[in-house]
Amino acid sequence: MFKFHMPTKVLVGESCVLENPQELIIGKHALIVTGKSSGKKSGALDDVIKVLENNKIPYHVYDKIENNPEINDMARGGSFARTSGCDFIIAIGGGSPLDAAKAIGVYATNEPKENSDFELYDIFSGTYKNKPLPMVAIPTTAGTGSEVTPYSILTLHKEKTKKSFTCVHSFFKTAFLDGRYTINLPVLVARNTAVDAMCHLIEGYTNKKASPSSDYMAIEGLRIIGKHLDKLQSGDFDVESCTQLLWASTLGGIVISQTGTTIVHSMGYELTYFRDIPHGQANGYLLCEYLKGVDKARVQNCLDALNLKSLEELKEYLGKILPRVDNITENDILEWSSISIKAKNVASCPYPVTQEMEIEMYKNSLM
Amino acid sequence: MFKFHMPTKVLVGESCVLENPQELIIGKHALIVTGKSSGKKSGALDDVIKVLENNKIPYHVYDKIENNPEINDMARGGSFARTSGCDFIIAIGGGSPLDAAKAIGVYATNEPKENSDFELYDIFSGTYKNKPLPMVAIPTTAGTGSEVTPYSILTLHKEKTKKSFTCVHSFFKTAFLDGRYTINLPVLVARNTAVDAMCHLIEGYTNKKASPSSDYMAIEGLRIIGKHLDKLQSGDFDVESCTQLLWASTLGGIVISQTGTTIVHSMGYELTYFRDIPHGQANGYLLCEYLKGVDKARVQNCLDALNLKSLEELKEYLGKILPRVDNITENDILEWSSISIKAKNVASCPYPVTQEMEIEMYKNSLM
Repeated sequence: MFKFHMPTKVLVGESCVLENPQELIIGKHALIVTGKSSGKKSGALDDVIKVLENNKIPYHVYDKIENNPEINDMARGGSFARTSGCDFIIAIGGGSPLDAAKAIGVYATNEPKENSDFELYDIFSGTYKNKPLPMVAIPTTAGTGSEVTPYSILTLHKEKTKKSFTCVHSFFKTAFLDGRYTINLPVLVARNTAVDAMCHLIEGYTNKKASPSSDYMAIEGLRIIGKHLDKLQSGDFDVESCTQLLWASTLGGIVISQTGTTIVHSMGYELTYFRDIPHGQANGYLLCEYLKGVDKARVQNCLDALNLKSLEELKEYLGKILPRVDNITENDILEWSSISIKAKNVASCPYPVTQEMEIEMYKNSLM
Repeated sequence: MFKFHMPTKVLVGESCVLENPQELIIGKHALIVTGKSSGKKSGALDDVIKVLENNKIPYHVYDKIENNPEINDMARGGSFARTSGCDFIIAIGGGSPLDAAKAIGVYATNEPKENSDFELYDIFSGTYKNKPLPMVAIPTTAGTGSEVTPYSILTLHKEKTKKSFTCVHSFFKTAFLDGRYTINLPVLVARNTAVDAMCHLIEGYTNKKASPSSDYMAIEGLRIIGKHLDKLQSGDFDVESCTQLLWASTLGGIVISQTGTTIVHSMGYELTYFRDIPHGQANGYLLCEYLKGVDKARVQNCLDALNLKSLEELKEYLGKILPRVDNITENDILEWSSISIKAKNVASCPYPVTQEMEIEMYKNSLM
């Protein structure tokens, strides 16, 4: 049995925010959740404010979202939404602000209190007494796919890693994909987010939960990324190619909504947590080692879609576009593997994984 | 700009109704809407009743749906739902019961009254004061795609044709695809519904509104149908192939939810209205003539996906699996074209269409 579920309406194209005020405004008082700079630099915040002001919708801007959001900050965001009287959220940014918005949406309607039936860490249960605030999303990177997933990935210092919650009410109502918002990204960010999207598509296609409802989407997304490998290397983007990469990233999000990710993601989280390596880049280092254990025919389908000949060619390409990482020790790897082997995405891996195998993969990928 | 929106959750596989009671039961009192025989013969009605009774959910069965539902009957169904106290609908059947359920869902919560602000024909507006009843769908043919569209196509004697309404609240919450429900279909029904799905996929792919969010789905659906051309001819089905054809049909529904159909459908409606020719079969007669005017590269992509060499080969195949139609006169065609040229799907055709062109297409297809 397989299933397909992705209720978010996706609008794709230049100026889709400006041209669809009725899709952006889904309440009476907006909370704009964004990072310190992503909303402003991308131009998305200006467009959103223009639409809200033209329609006389009051709003508050909450632009305190750091990379890899931490749950105490999310609870503060929820409290801010409550006290400001906001009844819907407009999330603008990369994966961090989008995932943060989902958590803030939960905390806004479910106040966490110590020794109550909803404490801070209960957000990871995925079921809440009150529905989260309704939300729309404007991605400003083409990688996360968060705009179309029910997942929110948060940093959890208690467990020294990132951990996700899944809530069907955390799907955004609408996602707006406009290449104008990603065209000015630093090339390193464009690359590592594209690698994140590539990982979603490949991990989804090679996943234990891959199905006829995810496979063809994964291949379509990889085909789009395959057409942009040169541009990702040269950094020479136009709005149309940026919009296409956003669409590929959204396809990656739809795919992992059906399948989940694999150990590439769970092992990557440690690189991000302990070394502050951007999420997509972290995944990119690990992807080829993971693929060595996957059914060869399925790997070849991914490579064909990317228009690459072999796993070696993929590894070489990733080596060219991702910065080198240094100074990883055996002790680091021992600690990271001991954490990542406990992650729930280990179960979605198409082959059984042990900590020893993860140690080997980390070593081959990073040392 | 393009968009993607399909909020229905789709569950695919043997016994998906029995195994997912929580997805089937979305209220406190069910109205089962089905045809006189489709629910019973398919086995779907038994499964549904078993789940409802196991969970002590009261229900009424409304099995008065005829082929090509007519709006007065729909209003009666809505009245029945109101007076029986039903708060959700389980639709079981081919396109007619599924489309009927959408109309009954509207009339159930919006009582039509003469000289009021909601009269019988106002259903075609697509916007209603009260939300339609929530609904789930169990298709018992693999053709309509209605389980994943916001469209309901009704017979309208006043205009001597079929006419559709579109309402975003008429998307089913969940659709259950189980090949056990279609395996015992008469082979003529299996064929003409598969041809309907094929037409949705091809008309969607060649549509003026075709986009990156519909193209790859259309091609995937055609690939699945292409793998089953022999089985459709021989009538030698198994549950797995029936489930795959249901999924292809659902992909067709998702595609036309984005694009709409073309003149194949609007011209086909007259064959159904005046000659009682089943919907898919009617479309099948007209498909190849329509395709003669379409961009050759796009036609070739459809043929490649179907694993056919040429439009002639498609025409020959359709000629083999569809019954011959006789006794069509020039006067018939004059009348039909005068009606069908007014349909709204004419605007989605990738080339401009006149009544003279439709006359020519009808003649070449049917005489």
